[in-house]
Amino acid sequence: MSSGTNRPELAKSQAALNAQGGPVVILVEPQMGENIGACARAMLNCGLTELRLVNPRDGWPNEKAVAASAGATEVLDRARVFTGTREAIADLHKVYATAARVRDMVKDIVTPRRAARDLHAHVAAGRRVGILFGPERTGLVNDDIVLSDTMISVPLNPGFSSLNLAQAVLLVAYEWWMEAAQAEEFYTHTGQSPPATKEELHNLFDHLEGELDQTGFYTHPDKKPSMVRNVRNTLQRAHMTEQEVRTFHGIIAALVGRKKQRARTE
Amino acid sequence: MSSGTNRPELAKSQAALNAQGGPVVILVEPQMGENIGACARAMLNCGLTELRLVNPRDGWPNEKAVAASAGATEVLDRARVFTGTREAIADLHKVYATAARVRDMVKDIVTPRRAARDLHAHVAAGRRVGILFGPERTGLVNDDIVLSDTMISVPLNPGFSSLNLAQAVLLVAYEWWMEAAQAEEFYTHTGQSPPATKEELHNLFDHLEGELDQTGFYTHPDKKPSMVRNVRNTLQRAHMTEQEVRTFHGIIAALVGRKKQRARTE
Repeated sequence: MSSGTNRPELAKSQAALNAQGGPVVILVEPQMGENIGACARAMLNCGLTELRLVNPRDGWPNEKAVAASAGATEVLDRARVFTGTREAIADLHKVYATAARVRDMVKDIVTPRRAARDLHAHVAAGRRVGILFGPERTGLVNDDIVLSDTMISVPLNPGFSSLNLAQAVLLVAYEWWMEAAQAEEFYTHTGQSPPATKEELHNLFDHLEGELDQTGFYTHPDKKPSMVRNVRNTLQRAHMTEQEVRTFHGIIAALVGRKKQRARTE
Repeated sequence: MSSGTNRPELAKSQAALNAQGGPVVILVEPQMGENIGACARAMLNCGLTELRLVNPRDGWPNEKAVAASAGATEVLDRARVFTGTREAIADLHKVYATAARVRDMVKDIVTPRRAARDLHAHVAAGRRVGILFGPERTGLVNDDIVLSDTMISVPLNPGFSSLNLAQAVLLVAYEWWMEAAQAEEFYTHTGQSPPATKEELHNLFDHLEGELDQTGFYTHPDKKPSMVRNVRNTLQRAHMTEQEVRTFHGIIAALVGRKKQRARTE
């Protein structure tokens, strides 16, 4: 599943994101290389390229990370390793922490969607921002959380809310991307054929109704206007392309021809 | 990373979702049990519980799916297996298809966010809805896509847009959940201590400013009002709890006491 190549506006927004310098993703003491790779993949899916690792358990670089990244090597190759979280965020202005529970601290908490909006505002103002993610098993410890300005919590099913590391990175990065992507919510993929004009559509309606008239389809003249309206509405909901209109002219002709042919042979 | 237990409104919305009957997730010819399990986990994270499988490659039930589901067994136990996509969607009213590319077809395409809004509208109107996801390697084939009303495409980084199966399920299910979750975008987790009232806060300011007055901190009386305003604004941005206000009273007293003590010993 992917974005396809149908949304030219995305290329523009991606270039804008790259130029701005998106949030740094900081994985604190990640355990499995596979998960680091999956995080890199999720980051690049969403236009984020700057990864920092605090004390990765299995060292760095890590072949399993490369294998799991599905080709997001531009993220892994640029990843920087730090010996402490404080060092990893030293050059940043605003830091968010993702965590399972807030425990016994007083902290501001936002959804990923709100965080995305705030992160874009920070970046637009020239501030460097980062997001902390904790180790797979335990999540961030309090000593890491206290280094953050704000916490991010995903408001999922309270009865089953545990996400794996790459899924957490994906949701936060996805909201970052969506906030700027300005993708069309709805469009019709038409391939090579443009949408039909109203004239082309009305010619099709005229063709159909003309043939139906000759068949005696409209047995009750007083009901004809509402029948015509209903069929026009049905076909209009299909918002056809030029090519599809031509196809339906052909369908009508074929059905009429078959009927005429049958009339001749009877 | 999880939702925490700080959002009581979610329990309500979850109950509403369960009662309504959310979208059915239909995996067409899924290959790896691990991926089926990861999909079940992502579904339950987002309150979806109805899974259908069309010709799962390695048969069903599948132990690897259970292992990868992180406990989402209520989804796996209820999963139903079908021999064809058409059979799997027979009782549904609206079907969405997720796909990498639109290829040579004319189809309506929406983002996951738009799909979530439309899916909720369908469900609220009593319609049964489902979402098709294709096999890991190839995605849905055209013969499956044509069974759908509308396609869902995630508008990610056009240069790197490939999602794995569970990630695709997660993003679509996440948008479904978020559309109804009505989670507070921003709140301050205060634990046991409620936010301070304005009176408690102003008493703290008075305490601080009174002590500072006695130390001769405000050397230029004409500048005192703006200095007071600045410090009040700084502390106000911390939007303290009752307990934190008490702590800061203690901090002021301790600092003053130390100074007095020092004065006595000098």
